[in-house]
Amino acid sequence: MKIKLLAALMASAIAMPAHADVLVENVKGVTLDENGAVKRFEALVIDDDGKITQLIERGQDRPRTDYLEDGEGRVMLPGMIDAHGHVMGVGFGALTLDLSDTNSLEEALDKIRAFAAENEARPWILGRGWNQEKWGLGRFPTAAELDSAVADRPVYLARVDGHAGWANSLAMRAANITSSSKSPAGGRIEKLADGKTPSGIFVDAAEELMNAAVPAPRPNERDLAFAEAQKVLHSYGITAIADMGTTIEDWQAFRRAGDNGSLTLRIMSYAAGPDQMNLIAGATPSPWLYDDKLRMNGVKLYLDGALGSRGAWLKQPYADDPGNTGLPLTPPAALRNILVRAAQGNFQPAVHAIGDAANAEALNAISEIAESYGGDRRWRIEHVQIVDPADLPKLAQHGIIASMQPVHQTSDMFMAEARLGQDRLGGAYAWNSILQLGGRLAFGSDTPVESPDPFAGLAVAITRSNAAGEPFGGWRPTERVTREQALAGFTADAAYAGFAEGRFGRLLPGERADFILVDTDPLLATPEEIRATTVHETWVGGRKVYEAD
Amino acid sequence: MKIKLLAALMASAIAMPAHADVLVENVKGVTLDENGAVKRFEALVIDDDGKITQLIERGQDRPRTDYLEDGEGRVMLPGMIDAHGHVMGVGFGALTLDLSDTNSLEEALDKIRAFAAENEARPWILGRGWNQEKWGLGRFPTAAELDSAVADRPVYLARVDGHAGWANSLAMRAANITSSSKSPAGGRIEKLADGKTPSGIFVDAAEELMNAAVPAPRPNERDLAFAEAQKVLHSYGITAIADMGTTIEDWQAFRRAGDNGSLTLRIMSYAAGPDQMNLIAGATPSPWLYDDKLRMNGVKLYLDGALGSRGAWLKQPYADDPGNTGLPLTPPAALRNILVRAAQGNFQPAVHAIGDAANAEALNAISEIAESYGGDRRWRIEHVQIVDPADLPKLAQHGIIASMQPVHQTSDMFMAEARLGQDRLGGAYAWNSILQLGGRLAFGSDTPVESPDPFAGLAVAITRSNAAGEPFGGWRPTERVTREQALAGFTADAAYAGFAEGRFGRLLPGERADFILVDTDPLLATPEEIRATTVHETWVGGRKVYEAD
Repeated sequence: MKIKLLAALMASAIAMPAHADVLVENVKGVTLDENGAVKRFEALVIDDDGKITQLIERGQDRPRTDYLEDGEGRVMLPGMIDAHGHVMGVGFGALTLDLSDTNSLEEALDKIRAFAAENEARPWILGRGWNQEKWGLGRFPTAAELDSAVADRPVYLARVDGHAGWANSLAMRAANITSSSKSPAGGRIEKLADGKTPSGIFVDAAEELMNAAVPAPRPNERDLAFAEAQKVLHSYGITAIADMGTTIEDWQAFRRAGDNGSLTLRIMSYAAGPDQMNLIAGATPSPWLYDDKLRMNGVKLYLDGALGSRGAWLKQPYADDPGNTGLPLTPPAALRNILVRAAQGNFQPAVHAIGDAANAEALNAISEIAESYGGDRRWRIEHVQIVDPADLPKLAQHGIIASMQPVHQTSDMFMAEARLGQDRLGGAYAWNSILQLGGRLAFGSDTPVESPDPFAGLAVAITRSNAAGEPFGGWRPTERVTREQALAGFTADAAYAGFAEGRFGRLLPGERADFILVDTDPLLATPEEIRATTVHETWVGGRKVYEAD
Repeated sequence: MKIKLLAALMASAIAMPAHADVLVENVKGVTLDENGAVKRFEALVIDDDGKITQLIERGQDRPRTDYLEDGEGRVMLPGMIDAHGHVMGVGFGALTLDLSDTNSLEEALDKIRAFAAENEARPWILGRGWNQEKWGLGRFPTAAELDSAVADRPVYLARVDGHAGWANSLAMRAANITSSSKSPAGGRIEKLADGKTPSGIFVDAAEELMNAAVPAPRPNERDLAFAEAQKVLHSYGITAIADMGTTIEDWQAFRRAGDNGSLTLRIMSYAAGPDQMNLIAGATPSPWLYDDKLRMNGVKLYLDGALGSRGAWLKQPYADDPGNTGLPLTPPAALRNILVRAAQGNFQPAVHAIGDAANAEALNAISEIAESYGGDRRWRIEHVQIVDPADLPKLAQHGIIASMQPVHQTSDMFMAEARLGQDRLGGAYAWNSILQLGGRLAFGSDTPVESPDPFAGLAVAITRSNAAGEPFGGWRPTERVTREQALAGFTADAAYAGFAEGRFGRLLPGERADFILVDTDPLLATPEEIRATTVHETWVGGRKVYEAD
């Protein structure tokens, strides 16, 4: 049978009022434009779809709209974008007990006891952040001490550095740890004075014995954790994030939120390896889902470890560990296979590379594969911490994006000097050199490894100094970037790194109305003021998703 | 800041033309109404959302709409709903070589050779349906014969009954099968005359040695398979299906289709076990997604096997295998645990039960759990083939749904007599008894185990006879159902069984416009005519998704 058009579609001929347009008025608006230039404005208009339709500058007439929002004279910035984080890690972190602020064993035990009482339904009590040095204890705590706080359920708590865990008796029983348990290679089960009874402390590889016994999160716990992650990130002014290492479980939690209308964070997702990539997205990246809130962009892979544990892969041995150069976690052939597999499906690879050997290898592998797989692929290297200066120019080739975390520079600087010595730091955290050579930056936090606070990141990016202002004048200060470059790194350039330019990252007509209202203009304030920024409100797609108390 | 309403929303005050309404005119419309009564009509109106707004009966005025469809006098029925199928199985079946129509080894080899040539990109050639008895071969075929057709890639082909597989040399090499390979328990690696060299035939448990070597489908193959499944099912007039045993890979393929707008089949999904249920849906069933096209309803579990392989769990030993009663695949405690876990999340369990012991156990377990988990839960038992007449009344308790496949009755009837003897068949495929006792039926096909053709199912449901009209008068004919009951089983009652009533399954205002145009009225035609029904068009949500050539 045939379709006949009986009447012309009339809808477009009828003048409809823009019935849900919103004018956000009385703000000190700051954004970067398409050329990276600063643009200031006093108001903007949001349409029914949550997109910006107009920026209003000083002296311009305001249009008539149906709703009016008074910005109360606050600074309006584009929503902050974290180019490298771990969303579910943030969420589960928010759900577990944080002992990092405790100053004595007694204080910690009180906090553990109270947390267990507040969380009666949880079958295990999990936490992190204890530090017996800070407590002035002079020894590790014991299972018996932990039992005195919680004896009805297993408890397992990670040390502040993640290199040791503290279990109570029920947790050890669940893990089948007894007097006859042997320490595994690379780890140690601490013993009591009798030399046999496990003390409750598990160091390095021995932690895995306990972790294997911790039950996987229940599905409602994942949803709760994701809701917490959104809350935490929005409270820091973050409206979008690149999630590094998305598993199918993570993805399903994101989708459940999207399906039930509670997804408020924009997530550019990089799968935890190529199998998860194909399971989640199929043969090609997902479309943008839920009004540009979720997309599986590509795949995260690990080329080496980290400097702290001397797992970063270096060209020469560690200065403080002669003979050790670290190791590639992904052998050359496997790296190239994964890059090809990703490229064949138009997935975007994001290669973790910290040491100079790892960065050289990532650059070489990408250069080789890019010969066959051209076009706008936005190959990403994550961290890019230590690069041989001779390799730096390669970062500008093939459109490679250096996805870096400013705060890592201040957290790592003295350790990096110990690990490498001054002579090998010419390409360390080399933000400005990368830009000067024509490369592209995107800035993030690596949350929950660091705080997700982008204002701390902005302050570091323009100073190379930590929160205490040290070192005075900045560490290797020629690698500072300008305020505008720093803001771009946490907004427009982070969007570009995730193929999201034009969708969000700038406050321009046609983009999603993702913005924050803060008390500080990061282009004008002191670094201290930038660090102290208060986020009053966070908006995503024209909807308020966070408001400070 | 505060929101102020500047103007009342005006949209509702403006009279809009119903600009995309469609009048489907000139049909012989048949549906069941909310009370199960037959309703006939001549036209219907579909709105912009693909929902029915009006049924027009003889003599009623037609409304003015913008589009007109001429049904050319055909019979319009609600879209058929298959209450038990395996969607991806249908799709992968459509992508693999079907040898069931070959009448000689030579014909089969020609067909295999041609298929391999047409499918150059496939790394393995997979197929099914060969039968050396039908070929008059008097022996199994060999790997060498298969090599003569395809020697450049592994080939592995399942026998028509699935109890043997035929491999070529490259497939055996991929599976590491050599002269020293031993037959596993419960299976046999066939040997050549030398008694050592594997012949290429793998029987029963030995099939697993080959299946383990067959590569998992690539992601684009899954998408292709799902597209094929939709095509096949729509061509039979099926607009919705309960997918039994959905894995995360299946679900992702469904979602990809939903995300890119190519999902045209409505899927009520039952996960492949409780872990997949939680991985896919989280703590509770998914919402209806994509305009009522996809929902994770619950979980499929297996309580026993099948009659053919004597895996069905019986109260007394098999008549043709004394001492064997079959076995429960899920022990009592595990069954109850899974039912409780599902009920706690408001998931709907669908318990496969074929033998009378399995059905008794399913009924008992559901009755026990239903004491604590009341409300409208629609516990499902799948197949319900052999029930002790003493247990039949329990099917009407707790709202249990008997999800049955009419064609299984004619496929199995003589085998069932052999397996059980006449005296134990009083509750066999007892559709009418279940209805008379106040139970609820839903009808399906178990495709790809049987053809998905619902018209074959309708014909069997009202006759208890197979396509050859045998046995004359029907097998245990008191268990026939009426034409209206049969139609309900494949439409409204199958929707109810998946919590979809009011969304689809009837042609009534407010429901999705899922309908088919056919040449035969199943309430008036002979069983032979019903079986020969031609589906001319299939529509889902007011969109044509299939049209016969």
